[in-house]
Amino acid sequence: MAEPILLDGRATSDIIKTELAETVEKIKQGGGKVPHLAAILVGADGASQTYVNAKVKACHKVGFASTLVQLDAAVSEAELLQEIEKLNRDPQINGFIVQLPLPPHIDEQKVTLAVSPAKDVDGFHPENVGRMALGLDAYLPATPNGILELLKRYHIDTEGKNCVVMGRSHIVGSPMSILLSKNTNPGNCTVTLVHSRTKNVKEITAAADILVVAIGRPEFVTADMVKEGAVVVDVGIHRVADKSKKSGFRLLGDVKFDEVAPKCTHITPVPGGVGPMTIASLLMNTLKTVSHS
Amino acid sequence: MAEPILLDGRATSDIIKTELAETVEKIKQGGGKVPHLAAILVGADGASQTYVNAKVKACHKVGFASTLVQLDAAVSEAELLQEIEKLNRDPQINGFIVQLPLPPHIDEQKVTLAVSPAKDVDGFHPENVGRMALGLDAYLPATPNGILELLKRYHIDTEGKNCVVMGRSHIVGSPMSILLSKNTNPGNCTVTLVHSRTKNVKEITAAADILVVAIGRPEFVTADMVKEGAVVVDVGIHRVADKSKKSGFRLLGDVKFDEVAPKCTHITPVPGGVGPMTIASLLMNTLKTVSHS
Repeated sequence: MAEPILLDGRATSDIIKTELAETVEKIKQGGGKVPHLAAILVGADGASQTYVNAKVKACHKVGFASTLVQLDAAVSEAELLQEIEKLNRDPQINGFIVQLPLPPHIDEQKVTLAVSPAKDVDGFHPENVGRMALGLDAYLPATPNGILELLKRYHIDTEGKNCVVMGRSHIVGSPMSILLSKNTNPGNCTVTLVHSRTKNVKEITAAADILVVAIGRPEFVTADMVKEGAVVVDVGIHRVADKSKKSGFRLLGDVKFDEVAPKCTHITPVPGGVGPMTIASLLMNTLKTVSHS
Repeated sequence: MAEPILLDGRATSDIIKTELAETVEKIKQGGGKVPHLAAILVGADGASQTYVNAKVKACHKVGFASTLVQLDAAVSEAELLQEIEKLNRDPQINGFIVQLPLPPHIDEQKVTLAVSPAKDVDGFHPENVGRMALGLDAYLPATPNGILELLKRYHIDTEGKNCVVMGRSHIVGSPMSILLSKNTNPGNCTVTLVHSRTKNVKEITAAADILVVAIGRPEFVTADMVKEGAVVVDVGIHRVADKSKKSGFRLLGDVKFDEVAPKCTHITPVPGGVGPMTIASLLMNTLKTVSHS
């Protein structure tokens, strides 16, 4: 049997970053404004810090300006909303994100709604979600859009394919199911959205030509759940203790890679699959902010 | 074999109207403001006129105030947008709709975006679509919401059921698939959205516990496409010439009722199924406008 093709998110995101850097160079040469992304980080959670740093670093790499607003974990909701309002009004800032999760005393929904849709490069505001659903120009949520970009760059034929999306989160599964159903390319899939209440999960996933897994359970998808010749996209990323590693842990996806990969024509590795594409997608949204302003 | 239960939209919408009328009575007794719905009708298309009249009549029946704004088919886009702005600003008007379709010289998308989300009782504005997708309080699109209401009132168990939605329109199929996937009741279905590019339609529909058909093709769904014991909801409504009728036509759905009904536990008739529920749903949205204001 042929080896599966790895959907290499790291390499693909590097290509996208190079393209973005070239575009930024042209903007500069034309005397235009370089996109400026701001990120608000509340508290000092390790994973959030890592994600935000990666985003700031990626901005730097492509030549975007970036600003990191670090707020104490004890910041009040009102103070955070003030910071957001400041960024909404700051003509220098083209787009910004508020790194989630937030401390429990802050209402995430209120925060999401406070971000101006015009600067909402995470694509979390209802207006952007609605515009996405209606096929209007919108800031698309980073992870689903990163997956579309990966499918596109690997020339995966999606039209008429049976696609199963596992997980109905607002950030990944639900928008992914909407985007893959649309009359676009990639798109035009016959999408089934599977979730915790689905009764016949294995039967459904085993019929998928394209399987996108975003359920947040390490190695949940096993070989018997996957069709021979499927394309598998694994959104999960989990740290699991591993004494044999210098770091003391290893990273696992939602898919049991070793046994699933041999059945696939294409599969994303974890890490190095969807993760880097999410950041590339955020950068693409940020570039869009200047073409809109 | 048992006769299928008819999901009687006419009777159900009558019950809803009675409930709404009681609520309006209470609002009046409490000295509150009765909901006021306005409808803009451009031109004199027969079907549109009929729909708008039915909506105005339904308002009257439940005790809502209503205003019909009739504009000439030759009205310019700018003039129509001015009318919309007037209604947006009019504190007397709680909600309004612009009857579609519009004449070809008017951009429907521009019109949809011009309606204030706070008065958008059709639920067509991106902000309402996004709020629906995110599970926030929203004006839900009338037809999908009417179907949910019908399923609820007939105590159809939807949790974990395989649901197939045929048709991906922004107004019916697409929001229906989103709403039935959500962690709500009715909801929690495993939804597959089928459309014109789907390759194995019959195989997919024949596995559906709940089948919602909104493809706009008369009698497209035949008995061989439906599972024994399914719940079938038919959104289609087509006038077909019939000399044996006094009116000269009869109404058909997207489902070949006579052969499909015997396989179903529940099925909507056409007419008298989804149609009346759509209007009931619009009225429910309109009532919401006063609890919001």
